[in-house]
Order: sequence, then structure tokens, then C-alpha cells
Amino acid sequence: MIVEERKTRSRSGGRSARRALRTAPKHDMLPGLTRGIPVCEVMDGAQVERIDAASMDILENVGVQFRDPIALEDWTRIGAKVVGELVYLDRGLVRELISTIPETFTYHARDPMKNVALGGPHSIFVPMTGAPFLRDLDDVRRNPTLDDLAMFHKLSHMLPGLHSSAHHIVEPYDHPISQRHLRITYSSMKHSDKTFMGMTTSPKNAEDVMEMCAILFGEDFLEDHPVTTGNCNGNSPLVWDETMLGAMRAFCKRKQPVLCSPFVLGGANTPASVPATVAQLNAEALSALAYSQVIRKGAPAIYGHYLSTVSMKSGAPMAGTPEISLMNFMIGQMARFYGIPWRTSNTLGGAKTFDAQAGYESGTNLQSVIHAGANYIWHSAGWNEAGMHCSTAKFVVDAEQCAMAHKMARGVDWGDFDQAVAAVPDVGPGGHYLGHPHTQENFQTAFFMPELFDNNSIEQWVAEGSVEITERALNYARKLLSEYQEPKLDEAKDEALLDYIARRERDIPAADELNQNY
Amino acid sequence: MIVEERKTRSRSGGRSARRALRTAPKHDMLPGLTRGIPVCEVMDGAQVERIDAASMDILENVGVQFRDPIALEDWTRIGAKVVGELVYLDRGLVRELISTIPETFTYHARDPMKNVALGGPHSIFVPMTGAPFLRDLDDVRRNPTLDDLAMFHKLSHMLPGLHSSAHHIVEPYDHPISQRHLRITYSSMKHSDKTFMGMTTSPKNAEDVMEMCAILFGEDFLEDHPVTTGNCNGNSPLVWDETMLGAMRAFCKRKQPVLCSPFVLGGANTPASVPATVAQLNAEALSALAYSQVIRKGAPAIYGHYLSTVSMKSGAPMAGTPEISLMNFMIGQMARFYGIPWRTSNTLGGAKTFDAQAGYESGTNLQSVIHAGANYIWHSAGWNEAGMHCSTAKFVVDAEQCAMAHKMARGVDWGDFDQAVAAVPDVGPGGHYLGHPHTQENFQTAFFMPELFDNNSIEQWVAEGSVEITERALNYARKLLSEYQEPKLDEAKDEALLDYIARRERDIPAADELNQNY
Repeated sequence: MIVEERKTRSRSGGRSARRALRTAPKHDMLPGLTRGIPVCEVMDGAQVERIDAASMDILENVGVQFRDPIALEDWTRIGAKVVGELVYLDRGLVRELISTIPETFTYHARDPMKNVALGGPHSIFVPMTGAPFLRDLDDVRRNPTLDDLAMFHKLSHMLPGLHSSAHHIVEPYDHPISQRHLRITYSSMKHSDKTFMGMTTSPKNAEDVMEMCAILFGEDFLEDHPVTTGNCNGNSPLVWDETMLGAMRAFCKRKQPVLCSPFVLGGANTPASVPATVAQLNAEALSALAYSQVIRKGAPAIYGHYLSTVSMKSGAPMAGTPEISLMNFMIGQMARFYGIPWRTSNTLGGAKTFDAQAGYESGTNLQSVIHAGANYIWHSAGWNEAGMHCSTAKFVVDAEQCAMAHKMARGVDWGDFDQAVAAVPDVGPGGHYLGHPHTQENFQTAFFMPELFDNNSIEQWVAEGSVEITERALNYARKLLSEYQEPKLDEAKDEALLDYIARRERDIPAADELNQNY
Repeated sequence: MIVEERKTRSRSGGRSARRALRTAPKHDMLPGLTRGIPVCEVMDGAQVERIDAASMDILENVGVQFRDPIALEDWTRIGAKVVGELVYLDRGLVRELISTIPETFTYHARDPMKNVALGGPHSIFVPMTGAPFLRDLDDVRRNPTLDDLAMFHKLSHMLPGLHSSAHHIVEPYDHPISQRHLRITYSSMKHSDKTFMGMTTSPKNAEDVMEMCAILFGEDFLEDHPVTTGNCNGNSPLVWDETMLGAMRAFCKRKQPVLCSPFVLGGANTPASVPATVAQLNAEALSALAYSQVIRKGAPAIYGHYLSTVSMKSGAPMAGTPEISLMNFMIGQMARFYGIPWRTSNTLGGAKTFDAQAGYESGTNLQSVIHAGANYIWHSAGWNEAGMHCSTAKFVVDAEQCAMAHKMARGVDWGDFDQAVAAVPDVGPGGHYLGHPHTQENFQTAFFMPELFDNNSIEQWVAEGSVEITERALNYARKLLSEYQEPKLDEAKDEALLDYIARRERDIPAADELNQNY
């Protein structure tokens, strides 16, 4: 009798719960990922120390070129050996400097419910940025505009698997390059209340981002709360330039985290060897991470990299290859060895369209960076054609893939194990579970049901018009945009931001710059 | 001077080595994979024991249905509790029985150079089987013929990433179903000298396969050398039928390995819970593995499964979802807990064409089964449309993906680490490595260069005709087939095989069966 009651209640509860789940908008952001599965470690302790030693030898004996007078002065001031633009860093100094980088921190969003932890077991998915072209809602490849950028910021806001609206997902070509960073930052802030990134295209642009963050969050708030992240690319091998170092200073002074990212084209600007590439990359990352602490002790910083191998046929960067996976595993181990959060790139690839190549590359990279335990998982949506375009179709599919990886990386849910196993004798040999109360209550949460994969029979698929994944994804993107609700900015802050932009746009010359890309 | 000499020699050596690598046919089979990276273990020891205990409870208290009088007699004889068709297996008995299954064994091929180890760290990639349709060299979807099957056996022979020609990759509809197993087995044996699989479509068919193996390898050789593998699917939940059990007996008696494969549609024929699904699957696999040892103590056997979750929309099997990955990790842990080699499925998916969905599904599954540490990685090439068709284009791309995964899973090559790191001071900050002797000697082997991914610029890609991956892959398949050289069978053995087939085809009625699929 009790069983029957439970069954009846469960059934109707299950049904209405399922109906609710089906009809409710599923746009709530997934919480930041806290992983429940182990990381893939391909080096033993001695091998980690071998990489560390090789990197420290490079820093001590080969040196790193800092093409920036202020950085050279800074290094001289704290007692590093500086010869011309070459800085030789003693391993003791490096270890001391990086020891003050926080192992984890909270990355604050405009909506505090969307704050995310970063570092240790905590990871986030951030969409791609920097594409000079897009494939739009009609899959047409063209130069992007500010409206296109807004579209991607809206999609980032709505897609549960993404934790950030990033910054210039696509380059808005309809706005002067010298002023773009202002409009890009505003678009990130306005169309989404998730975390966002800050432009580092010049030291002054980075300062503008800091000012706008101060307006949005409050000057005092910034001091102890990371609210944006800035990426600083190195020029491998072993060079940091003035633009990046200046932008880094703007961020670090305000205690906003920088991604210290050597830009690796394996075999072209690194040795033709997986572990030697990691040793060089590690030296490069450490040199910038150390400098972040010269700028400001205790400023959060992220061990970064852009990582590809180059095609012998075209010299172009490749992705989804075995060495990328191995290097990600190794870099993860090095970052954890130093106790620093780390950034990787996710769904990289060189496909020209959203075809099977794009799927293999992205699927492989995504699984690898998850197993590697990356914290700041950048370029998680839209990347295609070696970053030359952001694909709208791929953007929404990638985001769903991130949501799936999120579920996988959380690990096994043992919560209802005993109840679930109790269904086995209920059903018995040869039975089926679809009608069982436990199934009806738990099916939807137990197994992920991808929205953008078609699992119908071919007959049904043909009857429905043989809609390929690109078209399905673009229809989904249109549906999302039709349901978009702007997370309104506080009016006073919005006005202050627009005032700031207007003032800066008057200050910054904009002539003849429309069609340049940096 | 010495350096100069080394450079000169290295350069020319590097160039000619590279030229040789470029022009030489790259059809040599990769050795069986011996993994050098750790397995992904998502359960701690207590959780492994919790699954084990739940499975043993099921075996003891719920029982397993053996729909087969001989199996029921066998179980009764050795003292198991049998009630009707239900067999209740005491955990002590199960543990005792499975303890005689070899932890590793060598799987013998016609060419002994292509023997492969299986179990422990040793894994192999085996193409898909059982497709009632193919997408052919023109990407047309149609029923397959014996010629189509031969084509896939030839491709399996030539693709380095595949270690087996399997058996009925596609169903040859132009041959009577009751006689097909003979022609399928002969095609596997004739067109490739790699390992192959044996048909288990009936006990008698399995006996025919054993006889043909005895002709090819010698009757005595079989006794101590696994030369084929037979798959036995269970009917989840908790049922084994007469066909599968009879086929299993044919294999086990000759000490040929069987794959004991519960057929899991998660949520439909298992509880709606990841760990409870694994508990049931584990009970099912153990019951068949135990029976393999009742048939013949010490016969090699493989812990198998076919694993999917079902779509709530269509009831169809899904792949590339997070739970599939988690369950693979867990099943790997259980198989290692029992010390038994295990089988999984690789590039499963439900895409209707070779599109981005197919790529994501396959890339995700491949990475997951590699991290899971699967030994017998079946369905590694061609699978699409939930197994309804084998795609020729996907077949060659999947095989290249397996070759990449093979390189990744071997782990990091430290062999030339010191020499590679020595290039860093040679090149120095801001330099490049392409001209360095170490790079020229090692580039080709250091970084995998996928043949079927296009990494050219879009301009070059367009100039070359905007060839999509499906067409590129089909061109590649045509090229392989044009270069195919049959690995000739010993003439006497070939004749004996054909005599056997002719005799059996006279014995087996073939009427009205042409267009049936089993």
C-alpha cells in the first residue's frame, strides 16, 4: 500500500517535473565547475622536476627578452641581472616571486550569483575571442560589426555552459580600432551579467578597461575582488613586448588577474619535442608570472598559453593532435606544481566550415583540457578556421559540449544509488525500466540529453527535412536570441559608463582605422 | 667545426629522411598500443567495492536468466542454484570461476608480425561491425554486398591505426543469410593478415568459424593461441539467450576468447542512474564470464559491453554523452579489479551524415575510452547513424584518429629531451626553430600531421576547390584501394578454406533469405 502510494505520487511528480523541465527556459548558468574526477598526470615527480630544472636553466642562462624600458627598470631595481633587453632570472628569485600568486580566487560577475571560483579543482568555460570574421546566423562568412559582437555576448549570457561573455569574441569592424576596446567592454558589461574579459590591446586601452570596471563595480571593490581578466601573449621564444607588459601593469596594479600566455607554435617557435616545448613554454610563463608579482605582490595571475603544433604543409597552427593533449596534461602538472591557476584553449581547430573535422578537433581538445584539469578554459565556443572566424552554429554546439563536459567532470552521482539498485529486483530479468517510478523521477537528470545532436531514425530525420547540424544549431541560436532578456545595468552606472566612453572617444583619434585589425 | 659538421650531416639526413617518409607508403600497422599514460579512475576503493557488492547481491538474490537448457544443466552440475531458467550465483562461486580467466594474452594474426597483446596496458583498435547499410565511395547510402565488405577488409588491412579486419563490418546482402558467416570469415582471412573476429550468429555458425580457423592456423595451434574473438551480447536486464550461449560454447571449448557483452540502453534496460547501471552491467558481465570458465577453465574471455543512453525523444541510443564517459571509466576500474581484459565501443554516434555531430561524438568517445584504459576498442572505425550504416569516409578518418590516440596514449617521448632543450640557447629569444638541425631531424616524428584534416588557409582551400572532409576522405580511401596489395594466403590453405565453404554451402539451405537481416 505504501509502495503503491509512493509509486502514484512519484509518477505524477515525475511527469509534471519532466513537463516543467521541458517547457522552462534552460538558460540558467551552470555553477563554476568543481571537478570530481582525477586529473591526468603523464609525468612522475622526477619528470616534473626535470621540466622545472630545464626551465630554470633557461631563465638563468639563456634569459628572457623584455622589450620594454619600464620592465627592465623594474627588474634592475629588484636585483635581477639585466643585459640590454635580456633579463636573467635566478631560480631562487623566480620561486620567491611566484610564491605570492594566489592558488585560487573568486572571479566576480555583475550578478554575484554568477561569481565563479578559479584555481585548484575550480574551472570555468570562456568563449573564444579575437575572430576577424564570423559565420553569421545564415552561415555567411564576413567581417563582424558591433551588432554581431552584441549577438555573441547575448548568446554567451544565455548558454548555461559558458561562465563568461569574454570580450571581443569577434572584431567589430564598423568601429574605429583605436576606440573599439571601449565599445567591446561596454557590450560585454551590458548584454551579460556573467564574468567578462578586459582588452589588453595597449597599455592605455587596458587602463580604460580598469576605469570602466571601477565604474561598474566601484573603485574600492576592485582592490580585493578580481572582476575581469586580461590576456598577455608572449612572443615565443622568450620575448615579452611593450604592449603586453604595459597592459599587464595596468591590470596587476589594480589587482586584476592577467593570463601570462606564451604563444606556442610547436616546432616553429619551440624545439621539435613535446617535453622540450613544455620546458620552454614553462620558462616563458614563469618569467611573466614572476613579473606580475614585481608589479604588485599578491596580485592574482594565471599560468597561460596558446598552444598549437604547426602543419608542415601550410605552416598553419593545428589542433586536436596528440601532442596538444600531452602538452596540456604536462602544463597542468607544472601549474599545479607551482600552485598557480592555469589557462588553456579549448575547441581550437583548423576546419574551414562546421564539418566533421571541426567536430573531431573540438571534441578531442575539450576532453583533453578537461582531463588536464585546466582552470580557465578559454576559446570554449565558436573557434574555427584557426581562429579566423567565429562560427555562430559552432558557438551554440560548443557551449552544449561544455555543459556535457561539465557534467562528466563533476564525476559520478552516488546520491540515489541504493534506490536505483533497488529497482533491479523490481524489474527483474527481461523486464524494462521505463515505467518504473525511479526511472520516471530520475531519467531527466541521470542522463544528459543533447539538444543539438539528432538521435532520431533516418526516416524521421528525412521526414523532418534532413536538417543538418549547422542549420539545427542556427535555428537554436535564433530561438535563444528571440528569448533573450537583457540583464539591465543599474541606470546610473550605465550612464556613467556611456559618459566615460563619450569622453574617451573625443580624446582618441579615430581617423583611417576602420578596417584595420590588430 | 664539429658543430658545423653535425649540422650539415643532420640537415641532409633530416631532409632525405623526411623525403623518404613523405613518399613511402605509410600502411604499416602500428604495433598494439601499450599505454604510457595513467588510466582515469573516478571511483575510490570503497566505491569499487560498493559496485562489486551490489552486483554480487544481484547475482545471488535476483538471479540471471539463462534461456538455454545446456547452460542450465551446466550450472546445475557445478552446484549453482537453478530455479526454472533463473540461475542464482553465489559470490564465492563467481570469484572462483573468473579467477582462471587470463589477465593478458596474445591475439594471433595470420602474419605473426601483426600479433597483438591484449589486457593490462595493452589495447587494440578494431573497426565497427554489423552495419545493415553503408555509405559507399560516392557517399551513397545503400545495402552492402560482399564486394563492399571486401573493400572494408582491404581498408582495415591498410590503415595503420587498425589492428583487426573484424568480421561483418557491413552485412553482405547479396549472399544468403544462412551462409553469410562463411563468406564473411573468408573475406576477413583473405583480404587482411591482421587479427579478425569470428561470427557468433548461431552456435553452428560459430562452429564453422572454429573449423575455418583450424584450417588457417592448424587445429593444434588453436588450443594455446587465441586467433579470433567472438562477441556474445546479453539481453539486459539479466538475460543470456540460447544463440549467444551456444556460440560462446563453440569458442570457449576451443579456447578462443569471447566478449561477454551486456547490451545496455541506459535508462531503458537499466536503472536511471550511472552507478546502478554499472552495477547491473557488471553483474551481467560477471555471469557470462563465470559461465565461460564453466565451459572451459582457463579459456580467455573479455569483459564486454555495448553501452549507450537512450534519447527521450526517439528512444534511440545516444553516444558522446557525459554518462557514457563516466561509465567507461567505471567499467574499466571493475574489469581491472577482477583482472580481466575488457572491451568497449569507440566511435559510436547517431549522426545521419558525416557531419560535425559525428565528429564530436567520435572525438569524445575516443578520448574517453582511451582514458578509461579499454583493451579491446571495438567499433573504432566507420560507425554512424547508431550503427545503421558504416561510412567509408568516416572509416578512414576514424582510423587516423585512432593512430593519433595511439600516439597520445603511448605518453611523452623523453628520448631526445636533452638535445631538444639544447636547441633553446642555439635559437635564443626571438629566434625560430625551423632551420635548426634538431628540428629538421625530429619535426616529422615529434608532431603528428593528420592527413585528413585540412589546415590550409581558407584562400588556399578555396583555390583547391573547397573540398570538404567527406570528399577528402573518400579520395583518400580510393587512393588506398588503388595501392592495395593482397597479403596472399597459403595456396593449400586457401583451397581448403574454399572446399570447406563449398561443402557447407551445399549443406545449409539458402532459400528465401537474401534480404533478411538478423
